[in-house]
Amino acid sequence: MTMNVLGYAAPTAKAALEPYRFERRDIRSNDVVIEILYCGVCHTDIHYVQNDWGRSIFPLVPGHEIIGRVANIGEDVTRFKQGDHVGVGCMVDSCQRCAACKQGLEQYCEEGPTFTYNSKDRIDKIPTFGGYSKKIIVPEKFVLQIPEGLDLKGAAPLLCAGITTWSPLRHWKVGVGTNVGVIGLGGLGHMAIKLAKALGANVTLFTRSPGKEQDARRLGADNIVISTDTDQMAAINNKFALIIDSVPYVHDVNIYTSLLSLDGTLVLVGFPGSLDEPPLNTAPLVMERKSVAGSDIGGIAETQELLDFCGQHGIISDIEIIKIQDINEAYKRMLKSDVKYRFVIDMASLKE
Amino acid sequence: MTMNVLGYAAPTAKAALEPYRFERRDIRSNDVVIEILYCGVCHTDIHYVQNDWGRSIFPLVPGHEIIGRVANIGEDVTRFKQGDHVGVGCMVDSCQRCAACKQGLEQYCEEGPTFTYNSKDRIDKIPTFGGYSKKIIVPEKFVLQIPEGLDLKGAAPLLCAGITTWSPLRHWKVGVGTNVGVIGLGGLGHMAIKLAKALGANVTLFTRSPGKEQDARRLGADNIVISTDTDQMAAINNKFALIIDSVPYVHDVNIYTSLLSLDGTLVLVGFPGSLDEPPLNTAPLVMERKSVAGSDIGGIAETQELLDFCGQHGIISDIEIIKIQDINEAYKRMLKSDVKYRFVIDMASLKE
Repeated sequence: MTMNVLGYAAPTAKAALEPYRFERRDIRSNDVVIEILYCGVCHTDIHYVQNDWGRSIFPLVPGHEIIGRVANIGEDVTRFKQGDHVGVGCMVDSCQRCAACKQGLEQYCEEGPTFTYNSKDRIDKIPTFGGYSKKIIVPEKFVLQIPEGLDLKGAAPLLCAGITTWSPLRHWKVGVGTNVGVIGLGGLGHMAIKLAKALGANVTLFTRSPGKEQDARRLGADNIVISTDTDQMAAINNKFALIIDSVPYVHDVNIYTSLLSLDGTLVLVGFPGSLDEPPLNTAPLVMERKSVAGSDIGGIAETQELLDFCGQHGIISDIEIIKIQDINEAYKRMLKSDVKYRFVIDMASLKE
Repeated sequence: MTMNVLGYAAPTAKAALEPYRFERRDIRSNDVVIEILYCGVCHTDIHYVQNDWGRSIFPLVPGHEIIGRVANIGEDVTRFKQGDHVGVGCMVDSCQRCAACKQGLEQYCEEGPTFTYNSKDRIDKIPTFGGYSKKIIVPEKFVLQIPEGLDLKGAAPLLCAGITTWSPLRHWKVGVGTNVGVIGLGGLGHMAIKLAKALGANVTLFTRSPGKEQDARRLGADNIVISTDTDQMAAINNKFALIIDSVPYVHDVNIYTSLLSLDGTLVLVGFPGSLDEPPLNTAPLVMERKSVAGSDIGGIAETQELLDFCGQHGIISDIEIIKIQDINEAYKRMLKSDVKYRFVIDMASLKE
């Protein structure tokens, strides 16, 4: 039996979001039914609503930074019980058989993971709908435990912005004393600073805006470099083992590759890439065995690791809480970078 | 006391090479004096003779794939004795103090290594002259042992073409069963195939020339893919853990990044890069955590490891032996890719 749920959807591309009633898929024995308490608002939500990538399925219910409470469990569920606080990120399923899935890298599933919204369920083949809604049904394997004591509202963005920066920090083995650069201070960038700092790194923020210095220091940045200041940039040549590039639009990475140290990596997390970008100057790569790489969200085990780490260190996102009725206005403000640093929807505002 | 040596030099940029007498620097207590028997001819030699990078010092004596016999040793030399067969590659010195040197990565010396030619000696400050000559003086630390039984002529190209492909094979941990791609079948490419195969890899050559198939298979390639054939290319998506790109001119790497598997790396070894290249499409990097990287020759310990490996496996370069008097003609043929796969100068042809 399907479940009728109230949410907010974009009825067509670029349209304003509005209340929308829809059927969730049948509950299966390994499913957790979650009452959604909070949902973070990610830039990806806007891309899908605007159909920027040409693959949106409308009506579209966005939202993949979900915090909720377990309402019900299928008979085979063992790790959760009614009332538990849980999280759901960008994925709700994957093939579970390929080499990537077997390594716990479900985000790189060879068949493609099932995303929390705008995918098709692997069994029912009906579209998935995201977290701008009252309830969601997710296989146990893709449900995360929220550590006791972690602020639930501020934890929501950990499910996407958090894991997207945590995964490269861990993959490239950032630890005490590592020189880490972060390009851009938005939803991803502010999490990268907090997490790198908590791992013991020496953190430098690269920004074009001198006005961001005070806030960056409060978040944990040890240094702030104005990326348009060529003297400041020249002074830190060959310094960084890892630079996390969170810039979400076309930009030139060549000014950063020379800042990498021997064997250093610049990892793109904010922008899926475009051929409008300036050509990559490969000379610095050859001369000091540097890499330009990319990284996409993170696996489920790694996301649980992040949540546990945040529980231990009391790390949450800086958020501004909104009502679901304010979502269209929030999108407009996000497009002007007017948010510090993540909107989170209080789902109690959505009344049945 | 300096040592007067006969060699072959380019007197000015783009001029033909001709006999040239010059003074080598003073012999120091840690030096090995080497009578040069063979010297490989590298494309870099042509770049320097043509002053392609604007930093050539004339008269210029090229040559950094040197095989010789120890003629004399300084009083502090312990690892070599008169008559030993030895090799010298692209470097004859480095700072020995920086983090890179301490890791045995002298090629990435933070002060810049002293190259075998067209550098300045770190103490005397006089130019270094390469292996197109009868004798060379090299600090013991930068002299390599040639394993007994290895063909001396065919071993010469191991000192540059060999180590340049060996270093990334080792750094990116190629072993039994690794899927390795090699782009381009020249001096570097043919060594990459032999070495990857000897390490147990499954090796695929990418080439634009169907005529190279037979030779590539003889060298050890398991598969040959015509890089302009979009069907062939599409059939091997996401297959390669490492692709060694030995192409020495401006080209488009975007057709190869989609062939990398999860966590795969495309490493540029043949071309130092240019902004004339097409933009890098970073989307495949983000979607499967792939990297585009570079690698430059290799360290001294790693070069010795390569030579020992080649001694054990009987690996040498495919060469065409020439007299020093044929060097200008050899350059012309190299510019037409008319060599299988490396010219090596028999230095006995250079008469005092």
